Amino acid sequence: RSGEMAKLAQLIDNDVFRAYATYTTIVLLKMMLMSLLTAYFRITRKAFVNPEDTASFGKGENAKKYLRTDQDVERVRRGHLNDLENIVPFLGIGLLYALSGPELYSALLHFRIFVGSRIFHTFAYMIPLPQPSRGLSWVAGYAVTISMAYKVLKTSLYL
Amino acid sequence: RSGEMAKLAQLIDNDVFRAYATYTTIVLLKMMLMSLLTAYFRITRKAFVNPEDTASFGKGENAKKYLRTDQDVERVRRGHLNDLENIVPFLGIGLLYALSGPELYSALLHFRIFVGSRIFHTFAYMIPLPQPSRGLSWVAGYAVTISMAYKVLKTSLYL
Amino acid sequence: RSGEMAKLAQLIDNDVFRAYATYTTIVLLKMMLMSLLTAYFRITRKAFVNPEDTASFGKGENAKKYLRTDQDVERVRRGHLNDLENIVPFLGIGLLYALSGPELYSALLHFRIFVGSRIFHTFAYMIPLPQPSRGLSWVAGYAVTISMAYKVLKTSLYL
Repeated sequence: RSGEMAKLAQLIDNDVFRAYATYTTIVLLKMMLMSLLTAYFRITRKAFVNPEDTASFGKGENAKKYLRTDQDVERVRRGHLNDLENIVPFLGIGLLYALSGPELYSALLHFRIFVGSRIFHTFAYMIPLPQPSRGLSWVAGYAVTISMAYKVLKTSLYL
Repeated sequence: RSGEMAKLAQLIDNDVFRAYATYTTIVLLKMMLMSLLTAYFRITRKAFVNPEDTASFGKGENAKKYLRTDQDVERVRRGHLNDLENIVPFLGIGLLYALSGPELYSALLHFRIFVGSRIFHTFAYMIPLPQPSRGLSWVAGYAVTISMAYKVLKTSLYL
Repeated sequence: RSGEMAKLAQLIDNDVFRAYATYTTIVLLKMMLMSLLTAYFRITRKAFVNPEDTASFGKGENAKKYLRTDQDVERVRRGHLNDLENIVPFLGIGLLYALSGPELYSALLHFRIFVGSRIFHTFAYMIPLPQPSRGLSWVAGYAVTISMAYKVLKTSLYL
């Protein structure tokens, strides 16, 4: 089966596909960081949602008071959900775009703007920066995803 | 590296894969519309969640009154989350299904029912239509995803 | 176009890719079960969120009392969202990892730990088991995803 392995290797050897693999992995790792950030704020702010998570603080009323919402925790969770809503379209449309034969410089431009916009969006949301910082970074990522979708449909439309 | 590009082009030249690319892009664009719809309702209903988003309405109590939940905003957000929960499985299982060598007419049938069901689901949720409109459209998308998963496991099971 | 079909068949004939297809399909089906579980708890606990969903219980105040949150429903929904947050990175990074030419035994180890950890996580969340059961199963899935991301970046880094 080494022949098939070689064929797969050709896919990952393609520069556009390698760029897609790199930027997708980076932006997914960034999204995964939001889970750690949520855990960090839940522990430092002592704000939990599951009773079993507060068992180490004792029993009864003493533990119950930590079952509460916290503004910082909720902010991270909103940032995480916004990542999901925007990175899932990038994951799918970006893959199809990478397979649609774009120019390398064009693909790099799309991937870099998207990943840059999502990293900036996270800082704008977490610090938080005054608007329209967060709004504009969201628009940038949204726009390049639309641009990639246009290329995919132009190349491979089959209804 | 033009040889590898040619090989990638063969993938995107495959009719089943082109159909997957087309319908996946359409349904992801539809999901992305939910973000715009949320923004539209947040602005027209003046219902925000982040203090920095209401800064343009003034300071103190005047801005604080716009930090509230709104029924229309929450409804769009539920529709968006339902999209995520159902389109993510389609994204993954649909790709593997497209690579599992299905008949073209069968693949088109699966993709069209899924995308049609999600578009109908959005209208049923947003208008809203009386139940079981939304429920049945959800079931249709769920069922074709299960059907594609069955084909993937039958073709390529390797535990 | 049978030539291209044959090429696609070679992809799905690759053992590592078949393993990815199998484990990804299983873990996505598991995630889809969370929707059914939510529906089950909403119906048995009579806890709904959309007015149109309670119309069959009558009109006015009689139906309105079923528009409420329920602890069991909310717990399933948290488990579902946690699935989304963790399975989406696996979907993308796992695909790129499968295409990066890993050893079969290593790929199987990664996929099995990930899928096993997510299945255990669901039981730990739903029963619920005392902590740190849920926490550790989450860490296991998170760690193998990081390990796959490292392999992808090592093999195909292109910035």
